[in-house]
Amino acid sequence: MILGKHIFYTMKIPLYIYNTITKKKEKFIPLNPPHVGLYVCGPTVYGDAHLGHARAAITFDLLYRYLKHLEYKVRYVRNITDVGHLESDADEGEDKILKKARLEKLEPMELVQYYSNSYHQNMRQLNVLDPSIEPLASGHIIEQQQFVDKILNSGFAYEVNGSVYFDVKKYNEKYKYGVLSGRIIEDLISSTRELEGQDEKKNSYDFALWKKATSEHLMRWPSKWSEGFPGWHLECSTMSTKYLGEEFDIHGGGMDLLFPHHECEIAQSTAANGKSSVKYWMHNNMITIKGQKMGKSLGNAVTLDEFFSGSHPLIEKPFSPMTIRFFMLQAHYRSTLDFSNEALQSAEKGLERLFRGIDSIEKITPNNKSTVDIDKLEANCYQSINDDLNSPVLISHLFDGLKISNSLVDGKGAISSNDLNRLKQIYRVFVLDILGLKKEKQKTLQEGLTTELVNILLNIRQKAKQEKDFETSDHIRKTLTDLGIEIKDKKDGVEWEIISKDKLKSKE
Amino acid sequence: MILGKHIFYTMKIPLYIYNTITKKKEKFIPLNPPHVGLYVCGPTVYGDAHLGHARAAITFDLLYRYLKHLEYKVRYVRNITDVGHLESDADEGEDKILKKARLEKLEPMELVQYYSNSYHQNMRQLNVLDPSIEPLASGHIIEQQQFVDKILNSGFAYEVNGSVYFDVKKYNEKYKYGVLSGRIIEDLISSTRELEGQDEKKNSYDFALWKKATSEHLMRWPSKWSEGFPGWHLECSTMSTKYLGEEFDIHGGGMDLLFPHHECEIAQSTAANGKSSVKYWMHNNMITIKGQKMGKSLGNAVTLDEFFSGSHPLIEKPFSPMTIRFFMLQAHYRSTLDFSNEALQSAEKGLERLFRGIDSIEKITPNNKSTVDIDKLEANCYQSINDDLNSPVLISHLFDGLKISNSLVDGKGAISSNDLNRLKQIYRVFVLDILGLKKEKQKTLQEGLTTELVNILLNIRQKAKQEKDFETSDHIRKTLTDLGIEIKDKKDGVEWEIISKDKLKSKE
Repeated sequence: MILGKHIFYTMKIPLYIYNTITKKKEKFIPLNPPHVGLYVCGPTVYGDAHLGHARAAITFDLLYRYLKHLEYKVRYVRNITDVGHLESDADEGEDKILKKARLEKLEPMELVQYYSNSYHQNMRQLNVLDPSIEPLASGHIIEQQQFVDKILNSGFAYEVNGSVYFDVKKYNEKYKYGVLSGRIIEDLISSTRELEGQDEKKNSYDFALWKKATSEHLMRWPSKWSEGFPGWHLECSTMSTKYLGEEFDIHGGGMDLLFPHHECEIAQSTAANGKSSVKYWMHNNMITIKGQKMGKSLGNAVTLDEFFSGSHPLIEKPFSPMTIRFFMLQAHYRSTLDFSNEALQSAEKGLERLFRGIDSIEKITPNNKSTVDIDKLEANCYQSINDDLNSPVLISHLFDGLKISNSLVDGKGAISSNDLNRLKQIYRVFVLDILGLKKEKQKTLQEGLTTELVNILLNIRQKAKQEKDFETSDHIRKTLTDLGIEIKDKKDGVEWEIISKDKLKSKE
Repeated sequence: MILGKHIFYTMKIPLYIYNTITKKKEKFIPLNPPHVGLYVCGPTVYGDAHLGHARAAITFDLLYRYLKHLEYKVRYVRNITDVGHLESDADEGEDKILKKARLEKLEPMELVQYYSNSYHQNMRQLNVLDPSIEPLASGHIIEQQQFVDKILNSGFAYEVNGSVYFDVKKYNEKYKYGVLSGRIIEDLISSTRELEGQDEKKNSYDFALWKKATSEHLMRWPSKWSEGFPGWHLECSTMSTKYLGEEFDIHGGGMDLLFPHHECEIAQSTAANGKSSVKYWMHNNMITIKGQKMGKSLGNAVTLDEFFSGSHPLIEKPFSPMTIRFFMLQAHYRSTLDFSNEALQSAEKGLERLFRGIDSIEKITPNNKSTVDIDKLEANCYQSINDDLNSPVLISHLFDGLKISNSLVDGKGAISSNDLNRLKQIYRVFVLDILGLKKEKQKTLQEGLTTELVNILLNIRQKAKQEKDFETSDHIRKTLTDLGIEIKDKKDGVEWEIISKDKLKSKE
């Protein structure tokens, strides 16, 4: 049975994950099995979630689902950043949350609540499982202050005018700064700009652990140093330690967080505890849209809601959450991934084909013996997921398996009852449980029909007009208008739109 | 138009709400219009949500929705208690969260996350709107410590062995303790039991502001008094002040929280700020099941999930979230409400009848003038909701309105086009927006159209047949058949059915 066999397979073909810090695929050996501690950097909640958020969430959802499948007891912590994330990585600029709250005329926590809720809704749509704990940075101020104290006590931080900075140079003398990113301190000197206010720091590459709040800064707490707020990097060191311990298994996040965020986390934890806290660092790669980096200034920062509704000018049609998920899983998480309408449409078709194939397995009638090799299919699936979560290869094996199943449907070959059950289980386990794909909440039959029915009516109207049967053509226009469907005659045809939502609301 | 008229109606028939502290219905006048500050005690997240949670949430959701309808800018804060709520109100016993976490072998915050998520899911099912801010007690430890400091500085608290207690007797000498519950301090002396450890307190009715943690207590923070945790009552005073200010409009909660929780909140805020913070106190009444108080020991604490699935032995069949919501709204929030299978089944039927009636309004054909009084219906609706949110009376007016509409459907009486639009709007506004009811299987805009589009096509086909334009009639039959819609010509008209699911699947 597959449910037992995975132990066998993982012993035979163990899980390897690529560790960013060693730059190698390493055998995954938890510190304290069967427990696994997993920390992933969550969103800074000051705007709608976009593809970047989705990719990180889906990557580590795949990992979480697979570790759970392997029957590890996973504590998965994914934080919410609601304070301290300044516009510039150099500890300057406005707090991202505060700036947005000011623009939207909201209390910062109102904004945090709003965008946290909308992020959670998107994650549910993408079938991303809830983490075990989702701590807020603003909810762990005392713990962060205690962490600053530890770093101060170990001598790797200094206080200036009520702010506390991490002393990168001093740290680098004892430990090595840059172990994750490979950046060396000499390069940092030349690359960090001198910014206003940075003269407080001993060196431009030092970073804030605690910042004294300016008078207009709303989110602030008392401390022994000043009324202020924690530096952005601090929350992750603090909350991962609180909920997963001083050493834990896996820390994940997007590649964009590798430097300076994760590098600073390592420095903080090492300075405080004398050792680095993370055994495996994992980073998902970035997303491009039509070959370009995503960015608000480029006008291509399409939100997830816009993908789902098709309402962004760059998006030709709505793409369902499962299409987005499937598309992402068709690439390996460490590859960059380019979004285009064409690629998404082909993912949409691929996903349909996958589920159609799975449905057709039900049509197979078992025989006494098998001519097909289910062991091999199962081994291939485990082998690919165990190879640093190679979901594209896994998916191609699943499609190969459907070829076998299709020939069985066509009466070519034979499968035993036992093998048929295993075949069904392979698809249930890998597609639903591990890849986290599901049939979309089927649009009702009726819903899919509207467009076509309207088009039929418009064709009849067009014909009636040509035949000067204005009674019919006017009747059609009027009845559609009554339903809230607006018809616009254009030179090259007829456009229509459902406009009167109000009218329809009472029917909903 | 109704959307403007509510201002008129609320001036003519202003909103009155029952203020528990004055024991009178009072005209609602916000402190700082158009802003309204609303604070409601949310759940202690250590178990699945039950009817009690639903009733409080739905009561204040009705209020929130109505205030928003009145175009107030409402900041609605509903907290999550995740620390400090001990098993006994006398500051003794284990922390409820910690006990459950111990039993379920989870880190406390893992448990908090789990039950917060499940609470939120239930609230979404019940169509309860998200509050503007949903703060966690554990996320506001510093703010609570500052609040303790204020009470200590004003002389109404004392420290013993690292714990800080509120000095009820001293407070009562300057202010009056018991203004909300009517309990007087002499009664409290005789009614509070002497419990182990209480000897720390000067008087048995004093309550903890900060408790020193015992060695096994996991949730603890440093403070100037001890490593400990805040008293349960403190979080609400602290977080309402932080997010709504020292004085705000409405504080809501279940009647079971009136004493001691809300009484202690008043004492804390008054001691800290010299004035009570809340203008209107509102309390929803309790729920009984088959005449009995709900309780785990009685085996009748049915969870919301169990109602929705019908999986509890006391529940004869599944009851949908909207049935539960409608049932609750059919009683006034200040009445007790008894749950039984019979009562729920009748609510289920009533809700169906309501939506069937609303659907039938669409069948009314307008005339040039009205013989029906829409003004009166509208006035009645506003009058009932303005009378301390009298939802049962509102619902009975809505049913009365459907009698009018039914006679119009039957061709008795006449309604002008303008009045017909207003009639539709009354149902949209009161049923969907204010009562927050919805048809369970929420149809999309497009879906609602299919039936009507097919009917338009069939009418055109019928007419074409009569005119012997068989080209058109055959074309319509053929295109509908291609879409999977089967047409059956019967003696008394045409029937149709969507049959071909497979055909449509690829379009979904």
